[in-house]
Amino acid sequence: MSEKKIYKPKPVSGFPEWLPQIRRIEQHWFDHIRSVFESYGYCSIETPSVEELDVLAAKGEVDKEIYVIERLHKEDDDKEARLALHFDQTVPLARYVAQRFNDLDFPFKRYQMQRVWRGERPQAGRFREFYQCDIDVIAVDNLPLHFDAEVPSIMIEILQGLDVGAFQMQLSNRKILMGFLAGLGITDSVDVLRAIDKKDKIGGDDGVRKLLHSTTSLNDQQIEKIIGFTHIKTPDSSFVEHVRTLGVAHETLEQGLNELAFVMNNLQHIDAGLVVADLSIVRGLDYYTGTVYETRFLDDPNYGSICSGGRYEDLAGSYINKHLPGVGISIGFSRLFDYMRLKNKWNPVRKTPTDILVVLPSEDRRAHAAETARILRHRGFCVELYHADQKLAKQLGYAEKKGIPYVWFPPFDDGGAHEVKDMTNGAQNKVDPMTWNAS
Amino acid sequence: MSEKKIYKPKPVSGFPEWLPQIRRIEQHWFDHIRSVFESYGYCSIETPSVEELDVLAAKGEVDKEIYVIERLHKEDDDKEARLALHFDQTVPLARYVAQRFNDLDFPFKRYQMQRVWRGERPQAGRFREFYQCDIDVIAVDNLPLHFDAEVPSIMIEILQGLDVGAFQMQLSNRKILMGFLAGLGITDSVDVLRAIDKKDKIGGDDGVRKLLHSTTSLNDQQIEKIIGFTHIKTPDSSFVEHVRTLGVAHETLEQGLNELAFVMNNLQHIDAGLVVADLSIVRGLDYYTGTVYETRFLDDPNYGSICSGGRYEDLAGSYINKHLPGVGISIGFSRLFDYMRLKNKWNPVRKTPTDILVVLPSEDRRAHAAETARILRHRGFCVELYHADQKLAKQLGYAEKKGIPYVWFPPFDDGGAHEVKDMTNGAQNKVDPMTWNAS
Repeated sequence: MSEKKIYKPKPVSGFPEWLPQIRRIEQHWFDHIRSVFESYGYCSIETPSVEELDVLAAKGEVDKEIYVIERLHKEDDDKEARLALHFDQTVPLARYVAQRFNDLDFPFKRYQMQRVWRGERPQAGRFREFYQCDIDVIAVDNLPLHFDAEVPSIMIEILQGLDVGAFQMQLSNRKILMGFLAGLGITDSVDVLRAIDKKDKIGGDDGVRKLLHSTTSLNDQQIEKIIGFTHIKTPDSSFVEHVRTLGVAHETLEQGLNELAFVMNNLQHIDAGLVVADLSIVRGLDYYTGTVYETRFLDDPNYGSICSGGRYEDLAGSYINKHLPGVGISIGFSRLFDYMRLKNKWNPVRKTPTDILVVLPSEDRRAHAAETARILRHRGFCVELYHADQKLAKQLGYAEKKGIPYVWFPPFDDGGAHEVKDMTNGAQNKVDPMTWNAS
Repeated sequence: MSEKKIYKPKPVSGFPEWLPQIRRIEQHWFDHIRSVFESYGYCSIETPSVEELDVLAAKGEVDKEIYVIERLHKEDDDKEARLALHFDQTVPLARYVAQRFNDLDFPFKRYQMQRVWRGERPQAGRFREFYQCDIDVIAVDNLPLHFDAEVPSIMIEILQGLDVGAFQMQLSNRKILMGFLAGLGITDSVDVLRAIDKKDKIGGDDGVRKLLHSTTSLNDQQIEKIIGFTHIKTPDSSFVEHVRTLGVAHETLEQGLNELAFVMNNLQHIDAGLVVADLSIVRGLDYYTGTVYETRFLDDPNYGSICSGGRYEDLAGSYINKHLPGVGISIGFSRLFDYMRLKNKWNPVRKTPTDILVVLPSEDRRAHAAETARILRHRGFCVELYHADQKLAKQLGYAEKKGIPYVWFPPFDDGGAHEVKDMTNGAQNKVDPMTWNAS
């Protein structure tokens, strides 16, 4: 062995990497997500990993934990724009739509599944590099409300297919909460929203009562109405009647109730329990203007939302003089994937796409064995030809170790027969490579 | 419209981005490449976009145009390792194999299709961010030679499927050229290799003659043998006899001839003209130790190699005290994709995955139309429900503009029939959504 110096690489914290058997599952997740997105007619886009720092600055978002990139051997006369890795797919979408406005068809329905980067302090469940899976629909001037029901339907179908366990999507509408508070005569809502948002952490209703007493000048009656409001949770549009009984009226509230009722009515085909109108959710205060979505595990609600989004009034106003409302929803893919990996302790037996290992009988039968492998590959199977002239036991051991389900024995001499061994039950049979199928 | 300040984003040179209709083709390319890789049993891995700068330094590769990343708001006490975006997939593979050695099965057959970054000066056909598609087989101590024939077979199958036009893969073996020169008594081969490599640019044989006369002390006989050698090009293993006629003998040469003959003999199932043993190719001097591959367009050979690679002796010696020989081959995906895009002036009519647009007859028929869309989606079609209650002509225009091949008319009233219109020929027929199939 060489005597040269060896540098032992350290794991880079916050940048996930999987063994092939886990990567296989990850790829199946991506395939599933993509196929559902496409089944609703959403098109794929990808954007560069970087944006000009000025593009981020125009949206006022340079305070986030942004990574800038720089050439290691930068020349002094380098006058190029500063570039930063994107930290989400929303700013890139806004820039894309603004820049390519005349080449796109609206409503523009796109999905995007890329890595994003955030320089957060590494901690459990937080990555610095991770995949996000987003869909958004962008329209010019007016975006039909039925899209507010379509995007959560898509994500629910995806989550059901990923088998992530019991979950529930909560829907609300920013106009309901804001209109309700306005109807109560509350003009400065910041402290109230904060109290509602913290409800679970500060001891439920009593905590909210205390906090509102200490941070606002609201009277008991107002506070009790707010608390009553945060309890409204219905599987359909009946939340409207519950709000009515609180006796608060406001134009914005009315508008929000109508919108959310329409959305809930358009989600009635979804299995019971998966969606709920939940008026207590407070999300994306400075961004969302209508419907909002959050999604929680029923057995671990404190894990936080695994799929979130909402409607916004103005996607790309920082980059183009057009009014582009949109609605979008996003899965924090890597976070969810890693959670399920740790929770389910996946121990996949199959480390390879290979369906069939073709045995190499001997070096002088290589051409025949390779031809068998090609025939099976042409028929759509994933096929390896064993790589060396070794004992059969060793070849079978290789298949077993990698979880290859079938071992194929091509004829060991001219005129011999093909046989295949099913590794799950050990059964071995004579077969024809042109017609055989996996059982 | 708002009066706020607008920042008009500039295109970022060297970072490609496609419209949805081009992205669709790109995704089909990726799907095809992946399916061929997997059909040979290669498993997928992905590595983080970054490596420690020290990992690159250990391989002596920090001179390349590396991008380092840094948090914009870096704290002073930041003691973390410096990170750089990877510039290829070979260093990450070496680090991956070294770090996960005990968890992998050897020979380790992996594919990798990720973005890589190089801070080159932007120019036509050069990107700063681009996709590469690599396969490598890594063994411990001994790697069977038949893999040197397998990896080019895979890439040829891929290129045939991508319909990139007429191409040819050239194979050689570093030992043949080095052994031949050694057999001629040439110990310092640098100038000779440079002359051979430049042949096409310096005026062919005469240029090589002149350059060798001026930069080396070789005599006419040696020079003529070298020139004769560079002309050897055969579709099979007959190059061996051509070399023999030059009357040069050396142990390394002999070894190289045997290896390349074995590889060529194992490629005889490939369509005529696609592979050739070409002893003039000089590639990866400091890295490859055996078989080498280059691939050129027949109608544009000067474009350079579109698919290259070779065998190397020691993948990860900088990171682990193991002898890990490998063979790999790579497609510079983005460069090839963009070349074909510009050459073929793709003008795809289909901008969306949608197979069927379901017409919305009227707002009060929305639930029925949505149910039809769901039935068709369940049957595997990509289906959009038209987004607004608008005139039929407008809905049909939307389908036409986006290149959606079928428009579906659900019953306009209870008891009515379903009809479908084939947008390619205008034919419209009564159909059943449970049984209809695209023609």
